Amino acid sequence: MSPKQVKVAIVGASGYSGEELVRLLLHHPQAELTAVTSRQYAGQTVAQIFPKFASHPLARSLRFSEPNPEVLAKQAGIVFLALPHGVAAEYAIPLLNLGCKVIDLSADFRLRSAEVYKEFYGADHPAPDLLAKAVYGLPEVYRSAIKDAALIASPGCYPTSILLPVIPLLRAKMVQPQSIIADSLSGVSGAGRKAELDYLFCECNESVRPYGVPKHRHLSEIEEQLSMAAQTKLVIQFTPHLIPVNRGILTTLYLAPTTGFQSAGEMAELGRQIAACYQAAYGHEPFVRLLEGKALPDTKNVTGTNAIEIAWRLDPRTGRLLVMSAEDNIVKGAGGQAVQSMNIQCGFPETAGLV
Amino acid sequence: MSPKQVKVAIVGASGYSGEELVRLLLHHPQAELTAVTSRQYAGQTVAQIFPKFASHPLARSLRFSEPNPEVLAKQAGIVFLALPHGVAAEYAIPLLNLGCKVIDLSADFRLRSAEVYKEFYGADHPAPDLLAKAVYGLPEVYRSAIKDAALIASPGCYPTSILLPVIPLLRAKMVQPQSIIADSLSGVSGAGRKAELDYLFCECNESVRPYGVPKHRHLSEIEEQLSMAAQTKLVIQFTPHLIPVNRGILTTLYLAPTTGFQSAGEMAELGRQIAACYQAAYGHEPFVRLLEGKALPDTKNVTGTNAIEIAWRLDPRTGRLLVMSAEDNIVKGAGGQAVQSMNIQCGFPETAGLV
Amino acid sequence: MSPKQVKVAIVGASGYSGEELVRLLLHHPQAELTAVTSRQYAGQTVAQIFPKFASHPLARSLRFSEPNPEVLAKQAGIVFLALPHGVAAEYAIPLLNLGCKVIDLSADFRLRSAEVYKEFYGADHPAPDLLAKAVYGLPEVYRSAIKDAALIASPGCYPTSILLPVIPLLRAKMVQPQSIIADSLSGVSGAGRKAELDYLFCECNESVRPYGVPKHRHLSEIEEQLSMAAQTKLVIQFTPHLIPVNRGILTTLYLAPTTGFQSAGEMAELGRQIAACYQAAYGHEPFVRLLEGKALPDTKNVTGTNAIEIAWRLDPRTGRLLVMSAEDNIVKGAGGQAVQSMNIQCGFPETAGLV
Amino acid sequence: MSPKQVKVAIVGASGYSGEELVRLLLHHPQAELTAVTSRQYAGQTVAQIFPKFASHPLARSLRFSEPNPEVLAKQAGIVFLALPHGVAAEYAIPLLNLGCKVIDLSADFRLRSAEVYKEFYGADHPAPDLLAKAVYGLPEVYRSAIKDAALIASPGCYPTSILLPVIPLLRAKMVQPQSIIADSLSGVSGAGRKAELDYLFCECNESVRPYGVPKHRHLSEIEEQLSMAAQTKLVIQFTPHLIPVNRGILTTLYLAPTTGFQSAGEMAELGRQIAACYQAAYGHEPFVRLLEGKALPDTKNVTGTNAIEIAWRLDPRTGRLLVMSAEDNIVKGAGGQAVQSMNIQCGFPETAGLV
Repeated sequence: MSPKQVKVAIVGASGYSGEELVRLLLHHPQAELTAVTSRQYAGQTVAQIFPKFASHPLARSLRFSEPNPEVLAKQAGIVFLALPHGVAAEYAIPLLNLGCKVIDLSADFRLRSAEVYKEFYGADHPAPDLLAKAVYGLPEVYRSAIKDAALIASPGCYPTSILLPVIPLLRAKMVQPQSIIADSLSGVSGAGRKAELDYLFCECNESVRPYGVPKHRHLSEIEEQLSMAAQTKLVIQFTPHLIPVNRGILTTLYLAPTTGFQSAGEMAELGRQIAACYQAAYGHEPFVRLLEGKALPDTKNVTGTNAIEIAWRLDPRTGRLLVMSAEDNIVKGAGGQAVQSMNIQCGFPETAGLV
Repeated sequence: MSPKQVKVAIVGASGYSGEELVRLLLHHPQAELTAVTSRQYAGQTVAQIFPKFASHPLARSLRFSEPNPEVLAKQAGIVFLALPHGVAAEYAIPLLNLGCKVIDLSADFRLRSAEVYKEFYGADHPAPDLLAKAVYGLPEVYRSAIKDAALIASPGCYPTSILLPVIPLLRAKMVQPQSIIADSLSGVSGAGRKAELDYLFCECNESVRPYGVPKHRHLSEIEEQLSMAAQTKLVIQFTPHLIPVNRGILTTLYLAPTTGFQSAGEMAELGRQIAACYQAAYGHEPFVRLLEGKALPDTKNVTGTNAIEIAWRLDPRTGRLLVMSAEDNIVKGAGGQAVQSMNIQCGFPETAGLV
Repeated sequence: MSPKQVKVAIVGASGYSGEELVRLLLHHPQAELTAVTSRQYAGQTVAQIFPKFASHPLARSLRFSEPNPEVLAKQAGIVFLALPHGVAAEYAIPLLNLGCKVIDLSADFRLRSAEVYKEFYGADHPAPDLLAKAVYGLPEVYRSAIKDAALIASPGCYPTSILLPVIPLLRAKMVQPQSIIADSLSGVSGAGRKAELDYLFCECNESVRPYGVPKHRHLSEIEEQLSMAAQTKLVIQFTPHLIPVNRGILTTLYLAPTTGFQSAGEMAELGRQIAACYQAAYGHEPFVRLLEGKALPDTKNVTGTNAIEIAWRLDPRTGRLLVMSAEDNIVKGAGGQAVQSMNIQCGFPETAGLV
Repeated sequence: MSPKQVKVAIVGASGYSGEELVRLLLHHPQAELTAVTSRQYAGQTVAQIFPKFASHPLARSLRFSEPNPEVLAKQAGIVFLALPHGVAAEYAIPLLNLGCKVIDLSADFRLRSAEVYKEFYGADHPAPDLLAKAVYGLPEVYRSAIKDAALIASPGCYPTSILLPVIPLLRAKMVQPQSIIADSLSGVSGAGRKAELDYLFCECNESVRPYGVPKHRHLSEIEEQLSMAAQTKLVIQFTPHLIPVNRGILTTLYLAPTTGFQSAGEMAELGRQIAACYQAAYGHEPFVRLLEGKALPDTKNVTGTNAIEIAWRLDPRTGRLLVMSAEDNIVKGAGGQAVQSMNIQCGFPETAGLV
């Protein structure tokens, strides 16, 4: 084992994203997990609450504690917040003041605009001054800013599945900004570990349903990021659906190319440009898998990993461009991406603890 | 029990649609199931092959037979064909000549154009003369023609989930014909009872994946029907996905209204028109459920039934109309709809054996 | 439709067993559902709470009401109680006094002994005087007593899956009373519609686990009934497991025959006796399916139906008798069996509304 | 990365066990995967057949080859065989002669007796001379023999889930040898990646069923191993069931202690002895998790890992001892255990590549 080079803590480690962070950080070669907090489970070991980690010695000794910023600041240099929106900011402020770096998995610092926050989250932003300091933790897009950030706002699960496929196309002016439709299917872990009837086994199994239409909260960060990529304010259509799997998001995107393609030759040429655009953006990215040939994304190829699969097709009948992506909502869409940001912050190999 | 008034047979009763037809016809109050055929299972009783039906006396006595049109024509006045496309026509021709009415669940007679058939199914149509005689068996749209048809082409599962929500809007000129995007999620029974690796439990469970993009065969009948409704030739975007449920199709449709809506008042007015359009089309339909209030379709509300749920939303941010539907792919999308057509043909109550 | 001959009500219709009772009674040819109660849903229609029933006109008009025995007694002659144990008795007492017949799906009246109730349910029995009047509603065993009962205690789901296979063998003295081991696997609906973390989709999917060992509450009624059949007090080993299906119980029983079988001839002879025993007990029962040949029970053959499948094997290597059963825990194990009892009470065909 | 110290190959890498071996060996810190064979996929890369591994560089370059012992012997010092029984021996013989060490995941070398092989597998053993040389690859029991073995017969999935909980009790004479009943529930991957109707998604989902009763092939190795532990020939009762999960085996064991326990004091004393027995056997084992307190095994705590969970309960009502275990059938029950044996053979840390 390499020597552990950074001490890390997780605040709010009892949900599905927190649990995944625990898994990843227990096994990380260079980070040492020194504290996990949970009001509900304070005093119990990680192994007692998450028996699946019981084979790891640290899981048998490390106990959940009450979340206390002053204590945490002594235990860790980097603190992950896996808390509900609104609550995360309450911890981020003192932790930053105490000199910690903060990687927040909630929505609290993902937006640049406190007004948009209020529109979508229905409350005044708890720390508007911090919005300008936060870096949106999408490594493939903001790698250099992440490196020096004290506060990283790790993207939402749906946004990750949409932004990675669309940003390169918008930056290259290859698709019309107002044309974007995102149809997303998410596993039930996306709803969190909450005791609600809607997420009982019998209510989800043998069921598929849209929800949150037409104005899901994640639209705020998706549109803010896409607007920056397009250099114009845009709105998108986004429909999330709940499907009976534990993990995974499959997003199908419908886009209008800026260049039409009438003939087979034009289509082939546009295809080459799209391929080149993706290759330039992601050809060297360790976690973005550009599918080739007839392959299409399948969540079972990415669950448990930090990878995102992307494939695309031009449809000569409709003139549209289809792009499809698959990721694990609680790895690349949450805990894994947060660890990827930490690796960048710390100067570790970006794939450390993630493959 | 009412006296049985018509004798019916099923050719190709070993697949999932055939099995569902068996279930429905065993319990139908006015139809008597007199023959079921299956090359593979000939000689065995229905109860031996489908133990779930073993409580029904007829399932314990009725045996699968080899398919023979001359024998079938003596056993039944109406013959359901639950066969692969191409094969169905081979049976439809002699059965019609022998005086039977035929309800075909395959794609063989769903199109009016033999050329389109060849384009999408890759073979010359086996009986092009019959195309003009066949009636597309979508009762809510073609009820009167179904009544007198000798040959009914029962619609595909995906097409049903798309046509019922879209046709009234197109007929009323409320949506732009070339704007239609249909994103569909289907249970695994849609792939049929075929021993292929792709449909093994472990390959489908904890997996979601698109397939057949961008030109699925069902596009041919969807576009033919929608073009008739719009009175203009149109193409649509259609993306099917496989999800880990046994039964159910959830379709989300993205449409551009012909009337824009900028203000809240315009949106409310357009909403009233859409509601009135659907009410006029389906307000009295026994199997179309127009959802109200905040309700959204969920396949678990329709599986095992012949119902289709439909809900819609106007999105003031994008100017689009979203329509969502849920059906059971092997009931309303296959066997149930076929029985509904039979009920119309025979003058039975349309819901007989279906509720 | 036959004229409705009896008015029925359901108290506590919002759980899974209550929902199944609603389904069965909405479609029952001779019973008219006149009232459904639920504190939580009072004022809403059945169709609003259970959209899957919305195609039925009564579901769209019938509203949940607050449970009030005096009102219920005017609305219905037979009242089904789908309430937690302890609570059911509170309603049974006044309803019986008001002249209703009561079919209780809880554990409150399943035992003859108030002491055993206290041992297993941890509280004094709320109405010990009624225990002697209640009839255990297992139709295949207590049909004649059910016919005249004012208070029927409908059996638990696990007990049904164990009692039906074992009682005939014990009565015929074919198995040793103290040898019985029952290993049962239940779908998640058995846990009820309760908002608890343990029954969330992500906690049950891709999971199998025993629970309630070694002294599950259902042991009390199982052992009381089996002791009566054996005419000796016995205890059994019973291990329930939770498996990721919505519905279904599969029970595997391990029994020691009273007659050993060393040779192939002895085994064949004992096999004939067992077959004859089951045939005598259940050969004419409409809901008990004795499997033949190589067939083994499978929950998918019985879900949604009131049937129980039973198969058995003698093992010449160990000298044991294996018996396996499959039922739907909320039909034969709950609502369906309760309706079966009602049919007997009312003199309807026993299968009315159940096939 | 540590330098790779041993070259390994997998013959028959296209099934679920082979796939899991690929996963484990791609990431193993000290083993270098140099060859994978598959007649069906020869010429294609590992990443093409198993897209989930595509993030690993070696998966993108390593191609499946035709299985050829002479070539394999040049490529690898240790060869894993993930082949059907009967076929494995055909490769084991030449590979051993060519100087390779062989770790066979099939049943071919698990038995000491060629006669028992013939009884259970229905064919003459293909290499009876090798039976005496093979070591049964259950590390917790045969660690020292594994260290020096040239041919390791890796145990079956069901046997592992039964042998680990029972062997210490039999060795300590704490349970009666002829009393053992094992009721096992397996995920569908246990059936292999075979295109058969029985294992289609729709045939397994919402289904539970016993199979292979009463004489499953795995009984042969279970009884041979348990007889050695008990120092007396014994037979056991074993019932496998198929449940709708991808991975995982849950086994519930019913045992008769040799010491009765009438009083609470006797029960407590026996409990202490059992706990001590397990502690002595497995207290220091990295992959055996002895559960404490109220915890019971759950497959979701072990899937994807090489751990086995074990819990036990004395039942004062019946005098029996219940033992329950949970493992991942294709990790501890197949590929993971095989890698554990390799680690022992090679002198690597036993957990290398497995945590």
